[in-house]
Amino acid sequence: MSDYRYPYQDGVFVLNELVDLEQICKSAGLEEFADGLAEAVLDEAGKLGNEQLAPLNIVGDQKGAAIQNNQVTETEGFSEAYQQFCEGGWPSLAHNPEFGGQGLPNTLAVAVNEVWQSANLAWSLCPLLTQGAIEAIEAHGSEQLQQFYLPKLISGEWTGTMNLTEPDAGTDLAALKARAVPEGDHYRITGQKIFITWGDHQMTDNIVHLVLARLPDAPPGVKGISLFVVPKFLLDENGELTDKRNDAYAVALEHKLGIHGSPTCVMSFGENEGAIGYLVGEENNGLACMFTMMNDARQGVGLQGLAISERAYQHALAYAKDRVQGTLRDGSRITIINHPDVRRMLMQMKAGSQAMRALTYVAKAESDYYHNATCAEQKAQHKARTELLTPIVKGWITELAQEITYLGVQIHGGMGFIEETGAAQHYRDARILTIYEGTTGIQALDLIGRKTLVDNGAALTALLDEIQGDLNAISSPELQDVVESFQDVLNEAKEAKNWVLDVAANDSSAAGGASVSFMMLMGYLCSGWLMLKSANIAQIKLADEGTDIPFMQSKIACARFFAEQMLPRTSGLLKAMQAGGDTIMQLSEEQF
Amino acid sequence: MSDYRYPYQDGVFVLNELVDLEQICKSAGLEEFADGLAEAVLDEAGKLGNEQLAPLNIVGDQKGAAIQNNQVTETEGFSEAYQQFCEGGWPSLAHNPEFGGQGLPNTLAVAVNEVWQSANLAWSLCPLLTQGAIEAIEAHGSEQLQQFYLPKLISGEWTGTMNLTEPDAGTDLAALKARAVPEGDHYRITGQKIFITWGDHQMTDNIVHLVLARLPDAPPGVKGISLFVVPKFLLDENGELTDKRNDAYAVALEHKLGIHGSPTCVMSFGENEGAIGYLVGEENNGLACMFTMMNDARQGVGLQGLAISERAYQHALAYAKDRVQGTLRDGSRITIINHPDVRRMLMQMKAGSQAMRALTYVAKAESDYYHNATCAEQKAQHKARTELLTPIVKGWITELAQEITYLGVQIHGGMGFIEETGAAQHYRDARILTIYEGTTGIQALDLIGRKTLVDNGAALTALLDEIQGDLNAISSPELQDVVESFQDVLNEAKEAKNWVLDVAANDSSAAGGASVSFMMLMGYLCSGWLMLKSANIAQIKLADEGTDIPFMQSKIACARFFAEQMLPRTSGLLKAMQAGGDTIMQLSEEQF
Repeated sequence: MSDYRYPYQDGVFVLNELVDLEQICKSAGLEEFADGLAEAVLDEAGKLGNEQLAPLNIVGDQKGAAIQNNQVTETEGFSEAYQQFCEGGWPSLAHNPEFGGQGLPNTLAVAVNEVWQSANLAWSLCPLLTQGAIEAIEAHGSEQLQQFYLPKLISGEWTGTMNLTEPDAGTDLAALKARAVPEGDHYRITGQKIFITWGDHQMTDNIVHLVLARLPDAPPGVKGISLFVVPKFLLDENGELTDKRNDAYAVALEHKLGIHGSPTCVMSFGENEGAIGYLVGEENNGLACMFTMMNDARQGVGLQGLAISERAYQHALAYAKDRVQGTLRDGSRITIINHPDVRRMLMQMKAGSQAMRALTYVAKAESDYYHNATCAEQKAQHKARTELLTPIVKGWITELAQEITYLGVQIHGGMGFIEETGAAQHYRDARILTIYEGTTGIQALDLIGRKTLVDNGAALTALLDEIQGDLNAISSPELQDVVESFQDVLNEAKEAKNWVLDVAANDSSAAGGASVSFMMLMGYLCSGWLMLKSANIAQIKLADEGTDIPFMQSKIACARFFAEQMLPRTSGLLKAMQAGGDTIMQLSEEQF
Repeated sequence: MSDYRYPYQDGVFVLNELVDLEQICKSAGLEEFADGLAEAVLDEAGKLGNEQLAPLNIVGDQKGAAIQNNQVTETEGFSEAYQQFCEGGWPSLAHNPEFGGQGLPNTLAVAVNEVWQSANLAWSLCPLLTQGAIEAIEAHGSEQLQQFYLPKLISGEWTGTMNLTEPDAGTDLAALKARAVPEGDHYRITGQKIFITWGDHQMTDNIVHLVLARLPDAPPGVKGISLFVVPKFLLDENGELTDKRNDAYAVALEHKLGIHGSPTCVMSFGENEGAIGYLVGEENNGLACMFTMMNDARQGVGLQGLAISERAYQHALAYAKDRVQGTLRDGSRITIINHPDVRRMLMQMKAGSQAMRALTYVAKAESDYYHNATCAEQKAQHKARTELLTPIVKGWITELAQEITYLGVQIHGGMGFIEETGAAQHYRDARILTIYEGTTGIQALDLIGRKTLVDNGAALTALLDEIQGDLNAISSPELQDVVESFQDVLNEAKEAKNWVLDVAANDSSAAGGASVSFMMLMGYLCSGWLMLKSANIAQIKLADEGTDIPFMQSKIACARFFAEQMLPRTSGLLKAMQAGGDTIMQLSEEQF
């Protein structure tokens, strides 16, 4: 029931054909990885995921974390899996060698991370959040903070958390109230934070909380927020762990729809003497630090959308191949995979997961391109592309993941509604993905505002131009009908961009009302582009000697399915955008 | 949190303006109901739903039914609510006066049933299933069966169940194995049935199971199925209840994703001496009897889709009006209903629920038109329309209900994922609706096969012609842009029909692969038609003295929103259909 295998062949196809991991490795001076080592790494990760983490997925769902005396105990078995994860060196994969990281490309790490997230979404949130904490400290922390905390976080010896939300300050961080009062080389932090993922557990001997709080003299709003490191146990002056407990406690756990294995804590800082915290970056510059952490986490949540979709697909596929319902004319009974409507759902799950994988890996590769770029112009381009793709990866993928995990239940019929089957867990677990790290609405506003209007569409235009160029370059006659229909999608995307620049720029209701349709349209565009590119590569490879012909044919079929069954949605999205915001905003509050 | 009010004004609008309940009442010789009594009935139902049933909804979720020694105990409070329900005479509302029913129109009953389903979906399944049992016995049962069982079922003194599914026979009833061996005036039934809703409980002193089983000499497949009445406690020869327990027991309860308050039983018949059952209709004609029961239940599940959507909408609306997030330029803080993207989601929930309500009530009214029809031709037309609309009501509404309950969670942000909030319960409860009483795929095959290809599109053509006629008759200049865009939708629907008759007729993969898209397209068409009709009526009424102008304006705004934001999906659905079945079926089983 909880069997899971990383879809190795598709993963490697994306890494080699769409992203060119070999070139990334070479640029980073990692020739040995260019030569097959990447595949070996992925293979090892697959084993750990399949054998250790995947079986614990349903265990975490049925027996989630528990809290007693401000101490959270994670699901049985999670800690042992975590130790193995650290012993294998997995936490440090793509991190800075200066602090003990292995310095491998992010693009390889994202594929490896897919394994953990598919195998056990709730468990994997712990390393995912830790990664965000590492990014923030590395980008903004003082040298001492880096020396004290990064090696332990990178090795996995300690884990990290993100403490942003308060009861009255969710999306609206301007409203946050937690206080930080200077005291010598540190600050005293007081306040309550909610929805803190893996805020406490017993898997490691320290936890590093990154906490947003306000200084006494801070300006109001988001310009008065600062970021602090607040360790669960304090360090001494040499950075060694002490047994002095900081005044930062988990005081309650949430009872959630899904990801039961992930403790979602109410955290209380400074109930007693005040929690000791250390400033990250400059005072009142917490929002920028937070975004470093958040942007990484947003792509990570997009990856989760892919991961849970793949898992749900494998689950439904196994059932569809096994479940007998229906009789042919000759009296023989058939499995449900033979029914066209079930087949349609499976194809949607398969093609959808592939599209998500292509988009996630390609988006992540931009951070490697950025890192390896040799001139400022290139760096700027890759930075802009990463920023443009982040809300699409987070927003579009997690929305589509709802549909795919929904279909996973549907293929199971009545059994899908029974918890023991396991399909419903994926559906419940997936439901958080369009909410945390910024809801779909927030991603959409980010895309339309900070990523499109802000540069008058420059980054988006560059992307659309690249897609047009790629489309023009597809010569396979077998794909010309798909190319033609995709040209329509691309034209709609161009029209959508122009509408945003012309209309939404001057009408905030229109912009806000159309933002999710715009984001979804761009998601279908980007994933459709990568599916079509994949099909073209597969078509060319069909002629190669030694090619795995059934695999390449299936890549082409999935791209064609995606174009035929899913891309037609874009015209409806464009029309919905162009309807503007008047009707959306027409009713008074009383008329609801 | 669990507050719920029947949307009285919208319900009455549909009943008076779209359905003409007054005329239905007059045709049925119920002049007193034509004169305001219907509204009074609805008002009373609203009170019972709001005060008694709605508060029990979350109780049922948190403390579902339990089983011990083959005896199911329902959630505390459910039985008392059921007694009040019976005392109020609610079960008998639309049933045959010959057996103690009140003989009121089905159209009024469907509105009343919306109240129960919105207030408490899990609880309301018990009367819903009972209704199916009544229909089957009334249509197919012997005079004695009718005399013995109908009065008790109609009064609510006893409840009914539907026992179709077995572990290897879900959608595929041909595979069912339960046996019925003749023995004097009755049969001995043996076999196991699963997914039996309200298969046991302590709310009434008897339960009437309707059970599909095979006679020893029955032909294989669906032509060898018979339907039996199997009471939990046997009756004596005068039809009086005895304390002799029949050999029909609930042996286990399912642990489900939602509707925890509804016991879903594994039923064992004839583990000991064999359960005593009485044939309904003729031997080997069980499928027809089953469809009588099922078609009623299918429309009932469509109604559940509306009901849970309305409930989720009210829940989300209350939160959106209350939750403060965001600050205006002047520093004042605002509730989230003011954010355009939240507003878009609320409008989608509101307009979607209205569209569902219009479609459900209009579809149900056909059964009254049929009943009141004075000539065979009219009867045939209304029968065909009912049959055509049933899979659309079940399929389209329950699919849209997934999206609406999803948005209900989304509007709550992080709080939506927390079970205490209650939004997640609606989302979980709704998930069964696209599965039971025939999955969405089954509804879609029914629509494309038994309802469209079977009569060469005659019933569908009649509907499309009626819609075109209504569209042509809309004269309000304020609505001409909506009329124009809806003409596009109608043209697409006509094209879809032609494609089905031309292509799908000769290609079962194309038919099966396109069936859900076809059904969804027809759902948007029918609901769009009724929304536009509503807007036209509201537009005309704006000029009337004493009109509730804000309400009529909101009807127009909802119709416009529906046309602008939701109907544009039809072009994508048509394209997906026209892509055919080749790509859907292209991969071999091994290529998955």
